[in-house]
Amino acid sequence: MNRPIKLLIHGASGRMGQALLRLCAEQGDCQIVAAVTRKSPAQRVVDGVPFFAANELSGAPAFDVAIDFSLPEGFDPVLGLCVARGAALVSGTTGLSEAQRAALDAAATRVPLVWASNFSLGVAVLTELVERAAAALPGWDCDVIEAHHTQKKDAPSGTALTLGEAAAANGAKVSYASLRAGDIVGEHTVQFTGLGERLELVHRAGNRDIFARGALHAALRIVGRPPAAYRLRDLLD
Amino acid sequence: MNRPIKLLIHGASGRMGQALLRLCAEQGDCQIVAAVTRKSPAQRVVDGVPFFAANELSGAPAFDVAIDFSLPEGFDPVLGLCVARGAALVSGTTGLSEAQRAALDAAATRVPLVWASNFSLGVAVLTELVERAAAALPGWDCDVIEAHHTQKKDAPSGTALTLGEAAAANGAKVSYASLRAGDIVGEHTVQFTGLGERLELVHRAGNRDIFARGALHAALRIVGRPPAAYRLRDLLD
Amino acid sequence: MNRPIKLLIHGASGRMGQALLRLCAEQGDCQIVAAVTRKSPAQRVVDGVPFFAANELSGAPAFDVAIDFSLPEGFDPVLGLCVARGAALVSGTTGLSEAQRAALDAAATRVPLVWASNFSLGVAVLTELVERAAAALPGWDCDVIEAHHTQKKDAPSGTALTLGEAAAANGAKVSYASLRAGDIVGEHTVQFTGLGERLELVHRAGNRDIFARGALHAALRIVGRPPAAYRLRDLLD
Amino acid sequence: MNRPIKLLIHGASGRMGQALLRLCAEQGDCQIVAAVTRKSPAQRVVDGVPFFAANELSGAPAFDVAIDFSLPEGFDPVLGLCVARGAALVSGTTGLSEAQRAALDAAATRVPLVWASNFSLGVAVLTELVERAAAALPGWDCDVIEAHHTQKKDAPSGTALTLGEAAAANGAKVSYASLRAGDIVGEHTVQFTGLGERLELVHRAGNRDIFARGALHAALRIVGRPPAAYRLRDLLD
Repeated sequence: MNRPIKLLIHGASGRMGQALLRLCAEQGDCQIVAAVTRKSPAQRVVDGVPFFAANELSGAPAFDVAIDFSLPEGFDPVLGLCVARGAALVSGTTGLSEAQRAALDAAATRVPLVWASNFSLGVAVLTELVERAAAALPGWDCDVIEAHHTQKKDAPSGTALTLGEAAAANGAKVSYASLRAGDIVGEHTVQFTGLGERLELVHRAGNRDIFARGALHAALRIVGRPPAAYRLRDLLD
Repeated sequence: MNRPIKLLIHGASGRMGQALLRLCAEQGDCQIVAAVTRKSPAQRVVDGVPFFAANELSGAPAFDVAIDFSLPEGFDPVLGLCVARGAALVSGTTGLSEAQRAALDAAATRVPLVWASNFSLGVAVLTELVERAAAALPGWDCDVIEAHHTQKKDAPSGTALTLGEAAAANGAKVSYASLRAGDIVGEHTVQFTGLGERLELVHRAGNRDIFARGALHAALRIVGRPPAAYRLRDLLD
Repeated sequence: MNRPIKLLIHGASGRMGQALLRLCAEQGDCQIVAAVTRKSPAQRVVDGVPFFAANELSGAPAFDVAIDFSLPEGFDPVLGLCVARGAALVSGTTGLSEAQRAALDAAATRVPLVWASNFSLGVAVLTELVERAAAALPGWDCDVIEAHHTQKKDAPSGTALTLGEAAAANGAKVSYASLRAGDIVGEHTVQFTGLGERLELVHRAGNRDIFARGALHAALRIVGRPPAAYRLRDLLD
Repeated sequence: MNRPIKLLIHGASGRMGQALLRLCAEQGDCQIVAAVTRKSPAQRVVDGVPFFAANELSGAPAFDVAIDFSLPEGFDPVLGLCVARGAALVSGTTGLSEAQRAALDAAATRVPLVWASNFSLGVAVLTELVERAAAALPGWDCDVIEAHHTQKKDAPSGTALTLGEAAAANGAKVSYASLRAGDIVGEHTVQFTGLGERLELVHRAGNRDIFARGALHAALRIVGRPPAAYRLRDLLD
């Protein structure tokens, strides 16, 4: 692949979009050729990046990969554009309908794409490690402990459930514990306890930039791959 | 394999040997057919287990696998016996000479065997996880922190070095820190730190039975395999 | 006080009693002048320590302090003996009746004594630290997390409740989480979480000797004090 | 004290000053009556807060307490103003000269003031806990472990040294370990290890707002106190 990779950021005014613009400017191997916002952008060019309204999407210049953190109602056009242009897609948009999920699967036969609810690289690696540890340590007790800020309503967290399922799929019987305290961004511990020894696998998120960073990582690695629905972990080094 | 597996314990009066006798009695899938001590045993049969002196080794009954935690001077006879009988060997005897290591390699073409300096299953799994994490997270900082009792002279511990090498072989640049405090049996943390997130992989040893437990685990799984020099991790589930 | 301190061990055949005999032999500042067992002892003198049956208690030689880890039915005689002899009492006997507790209170006007359900020095210190942290950090979230072996039926542990009450008495609103895994001896974490920062106070028990060690510590420090019901923490350095 | 407390922020354009403006706006019990910047402010009033240049300091309206995170060259005027106005001072300005430290001591006979290099409340509490634990656990091993981002040059951190000195002043012999990894804001662990048990006291900083938060906390509690040089820990609840 020729670097820099050409990116289209879809959902550029949201928290993730803003983080992507900032992080991309700090790196040398990518270039944002279009930042797309739901409404008309206040300025046409910001720090050298051209902005487009969602309804101008079809006029975006050539790009290698789109990163989409938007809303379900904006999802279909960006998916369609990627297929039409033969570009890759990295999407973290949540709340997709059944039909949208089916469209995503269909698009995966045409372009390389990845959809994930959590783009933290550390969590993706942890999930792999949990699978391996559970398979290698049958009979050990498995506990998943997660801690998040007090505003988080659901417990266990979605990520804790994913980790627990990764252990359970490899034979572990899993218990969960959840803490809600202060403004903790997110911590997940998967603990395997045998007789006389213990393995603790811990992920600590310090800030929310890690999700933008992981999406950018995925974007740079998915370009040039054969069409398929990739998982984030398939795009690790 | 027909269970129970028939075991010969070589070095039965040492701390590891004693732990093996105790643990094997608690399990149902193995039977000690010979416990071999350096000097003449005080009693010929203890709790149903027949004891032999080292110089009576050739008279031991048929066995599937020998577990050897003895001294270099007792190593050659037990290795020879395993080859002669076509039995497997699990050895944790340290201080072997170059010639003895060569003999071990040669024997591996005839019988299945495993030699390891640390038979903790948790450490074996951790080593695998560290390799994977290091490979998947290039550019993350890697620290290995170990804590042991104040009697331990060497630092970093051999296990810390093994873990660090596993990370380094997968591209990580590794820093070490060692703590010596109280009677800590052994703790190893391998920490991968990126921007905004961190993965901590921790092993805690609570007592020394885990090494006997791991050797027993290896013995039960090596029986019936093709001749080769296995690593402990090859014998995980 | 003249050293060595003279000790009477009541409940000498139990797990705690055995640990006390062993630990005292390792230290230079105490001497066991009588080891009392419920039934007639198999041997009258073991490693220089004279043994007595419970019904021979009144014939025990002069002692400075009795350490009692026995059963409720053996408690009254040892309490009576301490009062009669003007000796101190350290007791960890659980299951005392109301009447026995009242007798303990009454005895505290005559001799120095300490009764505790947990003689770990680390837990005693942690309890103090939790009180101070809770008082100094109003508004921070407080979580008590404990982990024990899978045989432990009650949850949260008694120690976790004691720690939580120490925090609550100083204004904290406390949440609890309990893990049951492997053969973990006992771990207690009290976590105070504010905005952007966190204080974690952790106690890890590695083996059960710590309770005997703490009782011995208390025995050596209670001798010579004025009559009163002391807490373990009053006898810290 | 009548609330809201009237604050003067000295060093309002720095990172700490900006955080103070933001945090104060979120709370109801304080009001910034003057924000002082080194150079002429771009706007005279921002979000209702009046701005002043350093050379206009004497014209600031009445205030209860000044919070100063500036540079040594700006320190003398704000100290003088506090004394002249009878207002309290909270300062975290580093690099003060001997003469400036002496002036600070002299001012403490006239107004209440606190100077600290670290305004984290959690660290202030931890320091207290370390003193108590070290005094109560003589003979236990003491380790101070700290982790910070890779840009931090000095090791051990100043806070680690302060914690170690708090332990050493109470009889502990202290060892240090330092990790430099990723963008870790700051973590400090003080570990006391005995035989069979361990106490770990950990502080984790998630972001740098905690220092502004602690300074604001100190400001609200120092107003109305008698003149003296307070420590942050004297101003805890």
